[in-house]
Amino acid sequence: MRLTILGCYSATPRTLNNTTSQVLEINNHMFLIDCGEGTQVELRKHKIKFNRIKHIFISHLHGDHFFGLVGLISTFRLLTREADLNIYGPKGIKEIVTLQMKLADSWTNYNLIFHELTSKTSELIFEDEKVEVYTIPLNHRIYTNGYFFKEKEGERKLNIEAAEKAQINVAYYSKLKQGFDVVSENGVVIKNDTVTSACEKPKSYAFCSDTMYKEDIVSIIENAHVLYHESTFLDKHANLAVKTKHSTAKEAALIAKKAKVDILLLGHYSTRYDSLNVFKDEAQEVFKNVELSEDGKVFEF
Amino acid sequence: MRLTILGCYSATPRTLNNTTSQVLEINNHMFLIDCGEGTQVELRKHKIKFNRIKHIFISHLHGDHFFGLVGLISTFRLLTREADLNIYGPKGIKEIVTLQMKLADSWTNYNLIFHELTSKTSELIFEDEKVEVYTIPLNHRIYTNGYFFKEKEGERKLNIEAAEKAQINVAYYSKLKQGFDVVSENGVVIKNDTVTSACEKPKSYAFCSDTMYKEDIVSIIENAHVLYHESTFLDKHANLAVKTKHSTAKEAALIAKKAKVDILLLGHYSTRYDSLNVFKDEAQEVFKNVELSEDGKVFEF
Repeated sequence: MRLTILGCYSATPRTLNNTTSQVLEINNHMFLIDCGEGTQVELRKHKIKFNRIKHIFISHLHGDHFFGLVGLISTFRLLTREADLNIYGPKGIKEIVTLQMKLADSWTNYNLIFHELTSKTSELIFEDEKVEVYTIPLNHRIYTNGYFFKEKEGERKLNIEAAEKAQINVAYYSKLKQGFDVVSENGVVIKNDTVTSACEKPKSYAFCSDTMYKEDIVSIIENAHVLYHESTFLDKHANLAVKTKHSTAKEAALIAKKAKVDILLLGHYSTRYDSLNVFKDEAQEVFKNVELSEDGKVFEF
Repeated sequence: MRLTILGCYSATPRTLNNTTSQVLEINNHMFLIDCGEGTQVELRKHKIKFNRIKHIFISHLHGDHFFGLVGLISTFRLLTREADLNIYGPKGIKEIVTLQMKLADSWTNYNLIFHELTSKTSELIFEDEKVEVYTIPLNHRIYTNGYFFKEKEGERKLNIEAAEKAQINVAYYSKLKQGFDVVSENGVVIKNDTVTSACEKPKSYAFCSDTMYKEDIVSIIENAHVLYHESTFLDKHANLAVKTKHSTAKEAALIAKKAKVDILLLGHYSTRYDSLNVFKDEAQEVFKNVELSEDGKVFEF
């Protein structure tokens, strides 16, 4: 699982700070999460092939999370894209994009498929053989979802030597991988775990931005491998966090602790602070394994 | 008159190429012309004070000319702008911006004044004591206007020594500056041009992008000091220019010649060509005084 941070600052793009956008590579998918102004140029800088992006997830309709979307869609058109493009985001996103295509008299020559979200409870919005994506309803000034990307539980690893020794017919091997007990050629019941072992823990990534502290997301993202949780402010500005419906680094860490995630990744920083380390220091008072997202940083999880 | 080229390429922003946006400083105004994606960051790079921008002129609703507008408006809001902002552009521009403000529940705290254009003939859209702005109806795939920025004719320069010698009462000096003949204290009629001289030629700037070759703009922009005329293609791709309703460098030069402008500025280049000099070379076969716009270049005219 590889995560590329294209931008991780709040509010407005600046000379050295991009607004929110990330690319998550998981099981051959390349999911684009949020799309602030300038995202298409950041994708080019990172040499990410446009055609590999087939699903874009937009958290909410504040500009620092989606003002780059219409430009990206338009650029795909100019580059004569043919592959379908799926857009997941709040109701209204389709109207914004199609109004601009209509007034420009420039419709895409590829299929643009909108999945508009309105649910206030978590729902499964994407699924294939290996990956599922769920929404994480958040609490911000407008309707907002985070997204939970999960590898499905893989098949158990078969110890072929042990299976042969136990005289199991090869026809049963796929049953074994699925976790079933089977009967050997001699009519003996073979317990599954004597010839198989658990698969690796499936990877998962929970993206939560923008939101104020919202404890009931814990049950949705429990045991996530990586949690990206916004930390716009420090605890000393907790009043601002409440007022603007954002979180502090400390609150992000509390969610990480309660959800028992492996790694907490901070981001969506206000530019009022001189250094990013202050966010990490504050979070680590509550939860140890903290990483800082930074524009251009690539994480291998 | 100072012109800052923030971006001058066609189609899509790239790592090293910005799409159309320019800042024209004329008589203490700072006019922003077009606003491709990323314009706000280019304004920051050039240290152009956001509050000095009070009028934004959008040529047409193709993304490479206005996808940065909604982000700029939003950033002005976040920076608690108070000054009015006037937006001139095709009908529909207000709906695009207000739809996004509505869905973001983020209305500006300053006055946002839209001047939506629909006329197919040139019209005066801005005027103060010293400057006028006219539309230049163009011929592109969708409704498009160029803009003609003109200093008004200044007052004549008074030769005070000559006026005193001719025994003209100081009460008549303003009449003289306005070009009138006056009567001296001795009752003699004094011809205006014996005590005054012409003011400097007023500066003017005609911005014409995007458009195919359209000869009837010549009468509107005649004798302009500087003409920016799009030159997306070279003559060898004239068929593409017709098909996409753009111009070649040669056609831009023909317009410059017929309109008897002082300087032709080329721009809106397709990125298919290796160098910009080929545009200049082609144009100079028709019209001598050619300049190339380039991202980040500042012209003092």
